Amino acid sequence: MKQAQPVIEQLTVLGVGLIGGSLARALKQAGAVRRVCGWGRNQATLDQALELEVLDAASIDLAEAVQGAEVVVIATPVGAMGEMFTRLAKVLDATSIITDVGSVKGSVVEAARQSLGPAFARFVPGHPIAGTEKSGVEASFAELFQHRRLILTPVEETDARAVALVQRLWEAAGSEVIRLTPDDHDAILAATSHLPHVLAYALVELLGGTEEKRRMFSFAAGGFHDFTRIASSDPLMWRDICVANQKELALAVRQYRDALNEVLQAIEKSDTAWLMDMFARAKLARDTLLPADARFSSPE
Amino acid sequence: MKQAQPVIEQLTVLGVGLIGGSLARALKQAGAVRRVCGWGRNQATLDQALELEVLDAASIDLAEAVQGAEVVVIATPVGAMGEMFTRLAKVLDATSIITDVGSVKGSVVEAARQSLGPAFARFVPGHPIAGTEKSGVEASFAELFQHRRLILTPVEETDARAVALVQRLWEAAGSEVIRLTPDDHDAILAATSHLPHVLAYALVELLGGTEEKRRMFSFAAGGFHDFTRIASSDPLMWRDICVANQKELALAVRQYRDALNEVLQAIEKSDTAWLMDMFARAKLARDTLLPADARFSSPE
Repeated sequence: MKQAQPVIEQLTVLGVGLIGGSLARALKQAGAVRRVCGWGRNQATLDQALELEVLDAASIDLAEAVQGAEVVVIATPVGAMGEMFTRLAKVLDATSIITDVGSVKGSVVEAARQSLGPAFARFVPGHPIAGTEKSGVEASFAELFQHRRLILTPVEETDARAVALVQRLWEAAGSEVIRLTPDDHDAILAATSHLPHVLAYALVELLGGTEEKRRMFSFAAGGFHDFTRIASSDPLMWRDICVANQKELALAVRQYRDALNEVLQAIEKSDTAWLMDMFARAKLARDTLLPADARFSSPE
Repeated sequence: MKQAQPVIEQLTVLGVGLIGGSLARALKQAGAVRRVCGWGRNQATLDQALELEVLDAASIDLAEAVQGAEVVVIATPVGAMGEMFTRLAKVLDATSIITDVGSVKGSVVEAARQSLGPAFARFVPGHPIAGTEKSGVEASFAELFQHRRLILTPVEETDARAVALVQRLWEAAGSEVIRLTPDDHDAILAATSHLPHVLAYALVELLGGTEEKRRMFSFAAGGFHDFTRIASSDPLMWRDICVANQKELALAVRQYRDALNEVLQAIEKSDTAWLMDMFARAKLARDTLLPADARFSSPE
């Protein structure tokens, strides 16, 4: 991926954690950006990112951090993005392109539309389908996006050249870029990502709830370990996603609850034919439909 | 683990699949048994096990297979164990010790009590907390039980020397042996293993249910991959477990459904404080309470 000329001179990352840090590392390693500047609320985090050479420059002053940036990536928690758009609108260069990495797109696009003003046309909503259950810049690594999908959800107003530039950056980071509407994105991610996280958190909470139940953890087998890995994810991130994707996630949880009630009835009736059919169908779906690249999913 | 003298001369395994095959391999590798004989309904499976040197001898005739066995291990699906006890009672040597590897203990112990007659005192109920989502003798390997727990659930009538011998064999296979009552075993396994499997199957079924939903699989991220791995397990095994542990599993599913309804309410009300507390508590429980040996859980 080494390129003779970088795609852009300066990238500014707002929120230098697992995702923002990994994108900075990936683009620098690919030679796609000459200089990465970082912004965050916490000077210690920025110092750590500078020391790890994830960043070339950093500031807790937003205006200073975004000055001269051709592309600004918002990699803060989803719940902080509304405020980021409001603040950015006041300090952004007139030609800077903005993109984000939020796990929810509909509500983020709406917040951007309301707050960015004329800069909204230069906002390219994005979401990398990548991550680990770890968080923080110390967990970041350049290969996080290799062979993983990156979803862009541009809307009617979005500038086509801005979309093309953001796409080129993510491809340089190793991603396969695809486009969806914000609504399709939110419905699909509710089912395949947000729902499983909620289910895993709920299971661990159920078992961890009382002292007597906590000893059950010592009997947990491998299936439980795999099943609940995602319950080690950042609680704040998931709280934000529950709010930002409320409608689609609540729908998915209700559908799942209804499906679980059907299973419960089959168990209570010892309906062996129904159980055998369902388990066999699910096994077939999992074995045949999951993309092979999912093996890149747990790099730890 | 190499021993100068084998613990027993002949072990007979009824049902030579992942668990039965792995136990045969482990005990032979440890030098704990001189000869392993296998029984199964299917001659081709037995031939495969002989070719893989998992077995030294095999027969589809139960009387022939168990003749001369100091220990007989029932490693058939749980649903077939009732019939196995009835058939065994007629052909078993007068001193053979019987054990099993079933994922449910209460109903298996009751079936043994009803069918084994005087041999019931020589039946040592067991359950190795080990496995992969694969099945069949071709997936078996000697290290499957290393550092994994093996639960024995002897009852009042169980002969203490029989328990001691079965424990010695599992320890030779690398397991850490502990004892529980059948009821405690079934409640704990319902929560930590049977419930997660049912939840994973239900999620895959929900997403795999319609053509339109099937395309969602192509967006599945790593969390989904880990979360649903156990839905690749043997459907027949899990159908049997749902029937054999009906009471405890139904209770666990109902408790989970109620917990999920609480989460749903919090999502619908955007109760950020409740969500943040629950996610943080669950993350802490998962990060601190899961035994480190769970890393041995997915050997594939």
